[in-house]
Amino acid sequence: MNEALPSRKRGDKSAAAFTASIPFDRRLYGQDIAGSIAHAKMLSRQGIIAEKEAELIIMGLISIREEIEKGEFSFRTELEDIHMNIEARLFDKIGEVAGKLHTARSRNDQVALDLRLYAKEAISQTIEALVGFQRALLDLAEANKDVVMPGYTHLQRAQPVLLAHHLLAYFEMAQRDVERFGHCLEHADIMPLGSGALAGVAYPVDRSFLAQELGFARISANSLDAVSDRDFVIEFQAASAVTMMHLSRLAEETVLWSSAEFGLVELDQAYTTGSSIMPQKRNPDVAELVRGKTGRVYGSLMGILTTMKALPLAYNRDMQEDKEGFFDTVDTLLPSLEAMAGMVRTLKVNAERARQAAGGDYVLATDIADYLVKKGTPFREAHRVVGKLVGYALEQGKTFQQLSLSEYRSFCPLFEDDVYAITVDSSLRARDEPGGTAPQQVEMALKRAREIVEAKGG
Amino acid sequence: MNEALPSRKRGDKSAAAFTASIPFDRRLYGQDIAGSIAHAKMLSRQGIIAEKEAELIIMGLISIREEIEKGEFSFRTELEDIHMNIEARLFDKIGEVAGKLHTARSRNDQVALDLRLYAKEAISQTIEALVGFQRALLDLAEANKDVVMPGYTHLQRAQPVLLAHHLLAYFEMAQRDVERFGHCLEHADIMPLGSGALAGVAYPVDRSFLAQELGFARISANSLDAVSDRDFVIEFQAASAVTMMHLSRLAEETVLWSSAEFGLVELDQAYTTGSSIMPQKRNPDVAELVRGKTGRVYGSLMGILTTMKALPLAYNRDMQEDKEGFFDTVDTLLPSLEAMAGMVRTLKVNAERARQAAGGDYVLATDIADYLVKKGTPFREAHRVVGKLVGYALEQGKTFQQLSLSEYRSFCPLFEDDVYAITVDSSLRARDEPGGTAPQQVEMALKRAREIVEAKGG
Amino acid sequence: MNEALPSRKRGDKSAAAFTASIPFDRRLYGQDIAGSIAHAKMLSRQGIIAEKEAELIIMGLISIREEIEKGEFSFRTELEDIHMNIEARLFDKIGEVAGKLHTARSRNDQVALDLRLYAKEAISQTIEALVGFQRALLDLAEANKDVVMPGYTHLQRAQPVLLAHHLLAYFEMAQRDVERFGHCLEHADIMPLGSGALAGVAYPVDRSFLAQELGFARISANSLDAVSDRDFVIEFQAASAVTMMHLSRLAEETVLWSSAEFGLVELDQAYTTGSSIMPQKRNPDVAELVRGKTGRVYGSLMGILTTMKALPLAYNRDMQEDKEGFFDTVDTLLPSLEAMAGMVRTLKVNAERARQAAGGDYVLATDIADYLVKKGTPFREAHRVVGKLVGYALEQGKTFQQLSLSEYRSFCPLFEDDVYAITVDSSLRARDEPGGTAPQQVEMALKRAREIVEAKGG
Amino acid sequence: MNEALPSRKRGDKSAAAFTASIPFDRRLYGQDIAGSIAHAKMLSRQGIIAEKEAELIIMGLISIREEIEKGEFSFRTELEDIHMNIEARLFDKIGEVAGKLHTARSRNDQVALDLRLYAKEAISQTIEALVGFQRALLDLAEANKDVVMPGYTHLQRAQPVLLAHHLLAYFEMAQRDVERFGHCLEHADIMPLGSGALAGVAYPVDRSFLAQELGFARISANSLDAVSDRDFVIEFQAASAVTMMHLSRLAEETVLWSSAEFGLVELDQAYTTGSSIMPQKRNPDVAELVRGKTGRVYGSLMGILTTMKALPLAYNRDMQEDKEGFFDTVDTLLPSLEAMAGMVRTLKVNAERARQAAGGDYVLATDIADYLVKKGTPFREAHRVVGKLVGYALEQGKTFQQLSLSEYRSFCPLFEDDVYAITVDSSLRARDEPGGTAPQQVEMALKRAREIVEAKGG
Repeated sequence: MNEALPSRKRGDKSAAAFTASIPFDRRLYGQDIAGSIAHAKMLSRQGIIAEKEAELIIMGLISIREEIEKGEFSFRTELEDIHMNIEARLFDKIGEVAGKLHTARSRNDQVALDLRLYAKEAISQTIEALVGFQRALLDLAEANKDVVMPGYTHLQRAQPVLLAHHLLAYFEMAQRDVERFGHCLEHADIMPLGSGALAGVAYPVDRSFLAQELGFARISANSLDAVSDRDFVIEFQAASAVTMMHLSRLAEETVLWSSAEFGLVELDQAYTTGSSIMPQKRNPDVAELVRGKTGRVYGSLMGILTTMKALPLAYNRDMQEDKEGFFDTVDTLLPSLEAMAGMVRTLKVNAERARQAAGGDYVLATDIADYLVKKGTPFREAHRVVGKLVGYALEQGKTFQQLSLSEYRSFCPLFEDDVYAITVDSSLRARDEPGGTAPQQVEMALKRAREIVEAKGG
Repeated sequence: MNEALPSRKRGDKSAAAFTASIPFDRRLYGQDIAGSIAHAKMLSRQGIIAEKEAELIIMGLISIREEIEKGEFSFRTELEDIHMNIEARLFDKIGEVAGKLHTARSRNDQVALDLRLYAKEAISQTIEALVGFQRALLDLAEANKDVVMPGYTHLQRAQPVLLAHHLLAYFEMAQRDVERFGHCLEHADIMPLGSGALAGVAYPVDRSFLAQELGFARISANSLDAVSDRDFVIEFQAASAVTMMHLSRLAEETVLWSSAEFGLVELDQAYTTGSSIMPQKRNPDVAELVRGKTGRVYGSLMGILTTMKALPLAYNRDMQEDKEGFFDTVDTLLPSLEAMAGMVRTLKVNAERARQAAGGDYVLATDIADYLVKKGTPFREAHRVVGKLVGYALEQGKTFQQLSLSEYRSFCPLFEDDVYAITVDSSLRARDEPGGTAPQQVEMALKRAREIVEAKGG
Repeated sequence: MNEALPSRKRGDKSAAAFTASIPFDRRLYGQDIAGSIAHAKMLSRQGIIAEKEAELIIMGLISIREEIEKGEFSFRTELEDIHMNIEARLFDKIGEVAGKLHTARSRNDQVALDLRLYAKEAISQTIEALVGFQRALLDLAEANKDVVMPGYTHLQRAQPVLLAHHLLAYFEMAQRDVERFGHCLEHADIMPLGSGALAGVAYPVDRSFLAQELGFARISANSLDAVSDRDFVIEFQAASAVTMMHLSRLAEETVLWSSAEFGLVELDQAYTTGSSIMPQKRNPDVAELVRGKTGRVYGSLMGILTTMKALPLAYNRDMQEDKEGFFDTVDTLLPSLEAMAGMVRTLKVNAERARQAAGGDYVLATDIADYLVKKGTPFREAHRVVGKLVGYALEQGKTFQQLSLSEYRSFCPLFEDDVYAITVDSSLRARDEPGGTAPQQVEMALKRAREIVEAKGG
Repeated sequence: MNEALPSRKRGDKSAAAFTASIPFDRRLYGQDIAGSIAHAKMLSRQGIIAEKEAELIIMGLISIREEIEKGEFSFRTELEDIHMNIEARLFDKIGEVAGKLHTARSRNDQVALDLRLYAKEAISQTIEALVGFQRALLDLAEANKDVVMPGYTHLQRAQPVLLAHHLLAYFEMAQRDVERFGHCLEHADIMPLGSGALAGVAYPVDRSFLAQELGFARISANSLDAVSDRDFVIEFQAASAVTMMHLSRLAEETVLWSSAEFGLVELDQAYTTGSSIMPQKRNPDVAELVRGKTGRVYGSLMGILTTMKALPLAYNRDMQEDKEGFFDTVDTLLPSLEAMAGMVRTLKVNAERARQAAGGDYVLATDIADYLVKKGTPFREAHRVVGKLVGYALEQGKTFQQLSLSEYRSFCPLFEDDVYAITVDSSLRARDEPGGTAPQQVEMALKRAREIVEAKGG
């Protein structure tokens, strides 16, 4: 069995294998080449290199990109990273002129650029996935507009709510997530080239042209900061941690709701698995995995924060560790959002059982108390009266509807016949302010939500 | 010695002591009373309670606030939290009518409100403290405009930079911090009252009036979300973690720079302590503590993320844990910013030693390579030549200035007399693009930075 | 409202207030005085100070301890920490001879000592609390020996288990916790005095005498390590994190089991609270809080790990941050263990509903498959057959007992009359290997568990 | 550029791809096959399957192992995990009898077994790597026995210490690490088979035979715990976090020491890289990377703790997340230890510069104070006197050796000619208690340390 463990990296114990980043930064080839093409154009426009040289370099880079995309490029660990792999290949292809591409550029501003290009794209895909998740929530909500279920606090049934209202709570969370990634974009959308190793470069570069060419909103304001700043990575990971937290809450509810005990929903088979030993079970594996994956996303946030702690300016090799956790977070978050969207979209709701649960357990007690308050009882007093009433009803094994008016009146003379008009539906209707669960409020909220996602196109 | 440990909470082992939050949420008394006053006004405006009742309630609340501020209020653990402590006292003062204050409100939306009011204030103070820190950086930079020092990568001297340029890197970090807390404010600035326990309230409340009265920009859009959302707390803590990370980098540099080995700065005595056994030492305690306190701020972020993971909607008692880490972060961040600002403002720079270091160790090698590039050598080739040149100089124990022209030429015939014009100052001047360390660029950057902080007033 | 936030530390913005640890390290007074008494004894035994001097010092220290315990000691922030507060008071009391106490000792080895004495005590109390928790589990298990419930995987009912068996799983977790804290003790139980500031001391001290006097198992082997090592703090916090994780799992189950939907247990009122607006609810607040407090304990672990990262040897002021998270963990863990023990001990089990659930939902499918295997069907084949059988039964709305033998046989001819002997109880009995849920195995496991806790006395 | 991001997992958006673990758990093939072979043997010994069947199964498994090791096995994502991949292949090879292997076993106890086998191996390799690291420390220490350097507190020079003494501090840390992983082994070394899905199995299995066959010290005591316990994974990661923290401290010191400013050591080229733009630099990349990788190891610990929080018993799919962070930690820790060992072993010490630094900056002040104490001055008084003396010397720009006796005496009449005998070497010699830096103590400590590593063989 002793072949299992050392079978990975440990074969090559050299420092080179230890420091190489090519196994994970090869993913950035597209960003690296795009950045180099823009840089070559700029160098030529500014007369730093000749036009012909730039053309050679650009053609070389384009053909390298094709090699990579066709799977014909052989990555070499001894060349350490994606930048050197591409650079070395460029020398193979076009000879010494390749050496001019590195003019007025350092690895430090180059890696910052590549990661920022990647981050911008990751953010845009994340926002798209969030909107897809929002759409799934709205689809389910609109398809089940009349479904009422118990709202819970402390996992105890508390008050009836519309399922659509419950789902809209997640819509709001996702909306904040969208905004948060939007903010993150502002700090990613800054062009660092021209910062050199740390102090700027000694050539008449045109940084604004580079920004424009590469689609950046701004150029960085300080070269030392530009090569040592990874705030945008941390912000992405912090935003992802919050999003995963939100998903973990929905995942937890999905697990609960699809249990035999709750029985509120049934998951589509595509999002469950059977047990290897218990053929009748439908395990909510996707929900569980999303909930579990919250851990790795939190962990990667902790990782990058730790790595960046107390690093002196400017670039330190520690910062090579900015990538794997970031990539893993992207690779976790996007599929999690898609999986949850799919799971939500295909969810079957057990409307009958939900309504039954919404009416059970004296869930309408608050409404009875409100009834007394509206007849003039101070809130706290109404609370005490209803507390005793519920105690009595429990003892007698009766529901609110089963109590006689004289039983009601023995607790408070203000009770009248209209107490029997308090129902799950009257309870819902009564919560009729913006943000409340009254059907007409939820209707308006659904419309507004739909407008928000429509505005995002797609 | 066995008295040391149990002397704290453990005396009262009852569940009540375990669940009470009054030891820490008493801090929220001002927010709680302000919220209750606004709520009473609204209830009366809407005819839910009588005008007289509202007046009584408000007067009672004002006098309770005075009692607390005069230290005459006795907080009672058995009343669990600040809300019940104030409510119980209101009953003492004005009798049964106190019970009407709780109409159309639940503890759940009340605690959300209080924490949001607190968060808004904490954010505003944090931004103020960040601007103060920025001012201190600018003061030091402007007072030392001509100071040149080695810029480091990998803690190896790399290229000369202006100290002011280095300090402006921290200005940029702080600027992003300001923006980040500004974003955080957007998600805190939402008024939750009217959400009740979770479903909304069954009274004709005016939520917009409440928002206006309490200075909120918006009302919450979904009652379930409103009572179960703590994103703003997490965002504050994530933003604080990034800010502390930035401070830890400056703290690290301060510790390094004030060591005997670096000797670049001298800290004011107010920010150092002597050793108990070595009288001559000046320990950079404040910088070390700030660096160390990064840990607790990271930890509190992890704490709240963990607490919120996988909680079903809506309110769960776990969420009581939203406060202590948040408060501790505020209590850590604000004094850290102030301490660092004070430390920076009183820093003495050893300009001579800094300049000496900036010129040592072949730090100008990049400039020599750039010299060759400008004479037509491809970048990578220039790099190789200078590498050999440095190797030779090291062997000979000579500086660049001490090498003869023929020695230079033995490595590359392009070297001419003007190679001796490459100096620390020429190196600085050459990095003359936006964001570079050239004196005139730094001058402009300082002006822009000063404008930014001036625009924030104060 | 602007009085709420700055009302804390921010009044005094001086660096002294920032660096002072007396607000939290005063808790260590007992350890500090005990350490000083032992040190004074040793100094006198070794002839480093006179016997008379030692006597004076010790008497002074004893009377200071009395002052503190009577609440008559006034702690002064400007004296920064507990050590200086006590030292200054000793000067007041006995004059210049107080200055001799610090001979052959530094603040660095002194703080290490105090924290180690505290840690040893905290560990011993934690182990005691864990054993108390184990006892509560056993009490509940023994009082409900016959209760059968569904065992869950993926929160789906899987197979019947005895409640006692389920509770013993937590006993095992707690047992590992006990062992883990025991290991932690080994690294705490090392006497650091004599290490001086970092290099050792220049006096003929007797370190072994100090160890013996203070009840330590060993003396530290390297002075630099002794003053810069906080592994024992991290180990305590890591062990606490695991224990809280265990408690959070039980807390989660308690919340689930006490929901209306599960209805398996009823919590004692001492461990629940009512809702402010819904009088009939019994919220499992204690369980929720314990689950929520898992966050702060994880956070403190991350905090101390972050603080210690990349600190050069030996002592750095960052390490002052070793205390608050540690103390908070102790103050969280001990009451959490006690609260959970109390909650468990007073839990009422709804045996009938549990048994009903254990028999529902084709939970016996595995047993049916095992039945076929024992009659010669390969496992995977038996699995397929039972899967189809369950599908059929679901369609027909029949339980296993309600299927006719011919219905059984239509899926597999090996079924015979004895298939009806498969019941919840037969299922339990069949799992009759060590560690299984068969009643006689659980009986033995309970005995063994009881012996383990009895062996720990108390 | 939009090909960069989605090029990974996102092609297959199905839930199957989301839940599959084969990309990472294929690493466990050896453990899985070993476990299955032992299980088949046991089934046959117990008469649960026929001897012939067992032989067929075992031969099949052995040939599958060969296929995998020869790279001839094609892993299939749709089969989700390593267990199903192997099982399906076994069916291909030996037909229906393959189905009997799963008798009396569940995926749940099978995955627990595999991970435990892996953990045991990882622990043993980690301990070996730690001992290798200890050896490297000793080699360097022994080769530089006479090198004296400044000991630092607060990164200020404090007292002279032997380099060997400093290195032995890290030896002690590594020794605690070895012990910690040893403790971790105790909780990993428990055989879970026979626990079934959660309740035990309904067959007459021999769990002790399995334990013996697979080299386990014990069998698990509770089936529910056995399938839901991942404490050993957390313990491994917590122990790894502490070890990485230790390495990060040494890495930080290496970075400092190899800076131009400190200049105490020179790193071997194998452990440094040149800069792409500054040819003369020798960047301590390996040390920086190890320091940076501390983040990911902390993060993975946080990840698994988060994942396990509040999971109800027994197995939940969340627990699939136990592997990647664990594997990544193993893949980080082992190469980090090896890299640091190699770096230490090849370090060149600048003995002269170290000694010079050790004597600078009034580092001997403590010794002067001790001198006065030994002549009868109370410690605190001696401290004050030396403080003034140092202040005077600083003003005069004199070292201790350059002060005249009358200058000394003007601060305290107890000074005599022998004050000039206080030197770096006398300072070292004076710290002559166990754990102190006196050469003879260090000599003994080196011997003891060498014995410890020798006892571990290798």
